[in-house]
Amino acid sequence: MIRRVDPLERLTAATRERTAAGLRRTLRPREPGHFQSGTLDLASNDYLGLSRDPRLAEGAIEAVRTWGTGSTGSRLVTGTTGLHTALEARLAEFTCMPDALVFSSGYLANLGVLTALRPGLIVSDQGNHASLIDGCRLARCPVVVTPHRDVAAVDAALDGARDAVVVTDAVFSVDGDLAPLRELHAVVRSRGALLVIDEAHALGVVGPGGRGAAYAAGLAGEPDVILTVTLSKSLASQGGAVLGAPQVIETMVDTARSFVFDTGLAPASAGAAAAALDVLAAEPALAERARDRARRLAGIADALGLETTSPAAAVVPVIIGDPHDAVRAAEICSGYDVRVGCFRPPSVPYGRACLRLTARASLDEAELTTVTRALTGVKEQIGPYSARNAEATRR
Amino acid sequence: MIRRVDPLERLTAATRERTAAGLRRTLRPREPGHFQSGTLDLASNDYLGLSRDPRLAEGAIEAVRTWGTGSTGSRLVTGTTGLHTALEARLAEFTCMPDALVFSSGYLANLGVLTALRPGLIVSDQGNHASLIDGCRLARCPVVVTPHRDVAAVDAALDGARDAVVVTDAVFSVDGDLAPLRELHAVVRSRGALLVIDEAHALGVVGPGGRGAAYAAGLAGEPDVILTVTLSKSLASQGGAVLGAPQVIETMVDTARSFVFDTGLAPASAGAAAAALDVLAAEPALAERARDRARRLAGIADALGLETTSPAAAVVPVIIGDPHDAVRAAEICSGYDVRVGCFRPPSVPYGRACLRLTARASLDEAELTTVTRALTGVKEQIGPYSARNAEATRR
Repeated sequence: MIRRVDPLERLTAATRERTAAGLRRTLRPREPGHFQSGTLDLASNDYLGLSRDPRLAEGAIEAVRTWGTGSTGSRLVTGTTGLHTALEARLAEFTCMPDALVFSSGYLANLGVLTALRPGLIVSDQGNHASLIDGCRLARCPVVVTPHRDVAAVDAALDGARDAVVVTDAVFSVDGDLAPLRELHAVVRSRGALLVIDEAHALGVVGPGGRGAAYAAGLAGEPDVILTVTLSKSLASQGGAVLGAPQVIETMVDTARSFVFDTGLAPASAGAAAAALDVLAAEPALAERARDRARRLAGIADALGLETTSPAAAVVPVIIGDPHDAVRAAEICSGYDVRVGCFRPPSVPYGRACLRLTARASLDEAELTTVTRALTGVKEQIGPYSARNAEATRR
Repeated sequence: MIRRVDPLERLTAATRERTAAGLRRTLRPREPGHFQSGTLDLASNDYLGLSRDPRLAEGAIEAVRTWGTGSTGSRLVTGTTGLHTALEARLAEFTCMPDALVFSSGYLANLGVLTALRPGLIVSDQGNHASLIDGCRLARCPVVVTPHRDVAAVDAALDGARDAVVVTDAVFSVDGDLAPLRELHAVVRSRGALLVIDEAHALGVVGPGGRGAAYAAGLAGEPDVILTVTLSKSLASQGGAVLGAPQVIETMVDTARSFVFDTGLAPASAGAAAAALDVLAAEPALAERARDRARRLAGIADALGLETTSPAAAVVPVIIGDPHDAVRAAEICSGYDVRVGCFRPPSVPYGRACLRLTARASLDEAELTTVTRALTGVKEQIGPYSARNAEATRR
């Protein structure tokens, strides 16, 4: 007897399980002017508030008028315009790196660098972003995942390794803390390895003028240091880049599959990112302002007894614990017209569901007062993480 | 004694090897108006010639003015605008599929669908695009690579498999031929598997009005059929999408890592793609015109005795063989102000380096005459593939 299988049934069953576990996700489309008409955005990665800046809009529009709406092919065929190469020169100059290569997304830049370097071993921080983890998986080499920010563990993993690559987020995407870059580099240097630093949440926020965490650590331009960046956070556009020595960039151009076999970045996004670099050069205080607002947000949470961290950049987590509670906490914030990120497994470890608040350079006192009200609501209706945790332990 | 290793030396050595093998790649930036001032574009994937269409430009510019330059976050946090959901509805309607989800690139859509479906087995055509191959690698399940267009091999691979996914390009990216979709679907249906069809080179070109190869094969809307598309070829923008049953789309929203952990598509690109769908609806003859021009290109090559294929869409390969010869053939075309794609290993099998000519709906008689001149130059200076092949065999 042949049993007819409905191939979608197992998807439906898995969806039911996610529903029961509080792990369903919903797309909530914004309408135009959403964040201009009352709702306070503490959820986006628009750290410098540039996504609606008229200078960036003009950069995008000029690019569309000059170059059209698409890049029309792989960067290696017809997809490289003068705009792309100019942007690469600007990115290299801004971060003080020798050379740069623009990808259509930061995700694909991370996949590209970790595969094209053909590592003999990758050593990866356990807090690294999904795109770095996917890069490790695609690299088809041994991968050692080290405890978060554990330099000694990295050193031990490198012992006897050949052609090793150490990879870390500069600023971790949910916890918002900084990798020990100087110490990691010392270990990498002594072992003859390469260090790949993802500046996604650091570019534009960390270091003087927002030149990034590698620059701030004195590592920009070191031959064994490779950076990846995204153009979609502080630079308020789309795309990503790999920055490094000319040998690294040549290797990417020839062999990075997510570069070679992908359509080049759309001209509008290249134009907007270039305009954002102009703004950063003209207003170097923006970065410090974003960091200041992040410290203020963390201070508000901390004063209420909510668990948070000392932010290195613009990302401020507020730990809730249970995923259902985290959803409820985000809804409480919504009731105060504050939009926050809500991170649940598998984005964060089980039991560590959290709100993710992001600072913007432009947050003002009235808005910070609104945040205080919203987080007070969270504290009163859900309580701090540690108290509920203790409660759970007693039961 | 500790031998100090230069970690970049192995990259330099590998680059030397690629140079010797004729496998270096060079970025050749276009300047504005490149393809408007004499150079004939037979290299891009701008099959309908829409990348500089004022209607698409207006769609992009309007999106930038309304929504800003970036989507500011993951589609699940702040990265979904009304523009994204409207584009999804339009894509589903155009392809006659139940539901759609927009990714920031077609590459990431392919990674997303093949991983999030959690297949027990993937059966993948050996001619599939790099993004599908990377999706197979990331899915961390057994993968059977079947000979090109071999339905019996797919059927055999599915024997006894659970939760299997069969994946194929609709139109193959370099050979330009069509997958046997109806026959594949019959096998997939009988085995209770799922069929993922990448419409990258088919959308806008194949089927009535360019609705794609699945639609043309009568498979649109079948519950066990899933499509991926790109917005960066016929639609002259950037981005990609997965289309399928609501259960499939829910699974992507909840679990596709390259969706959940990626910044949403930039508004300009979403706006341009939506405008392109308007153009396709208003001018359903564009698709047939692109196919006609492809047949004309293949006819020119064939009449000269150059090896080519019968094109199913807009892609026309001219097989050269040796990678150095292929580069020279592309340079000969350049001498006639004709820009063609030049594909060498690993993009194509060893010994099968080729020119890749792409048709555009707007190619006129004068341009086709120029193509005849350029390919005559290739034939006279390099000779047809089969003759050189026979020559090599004799030696």
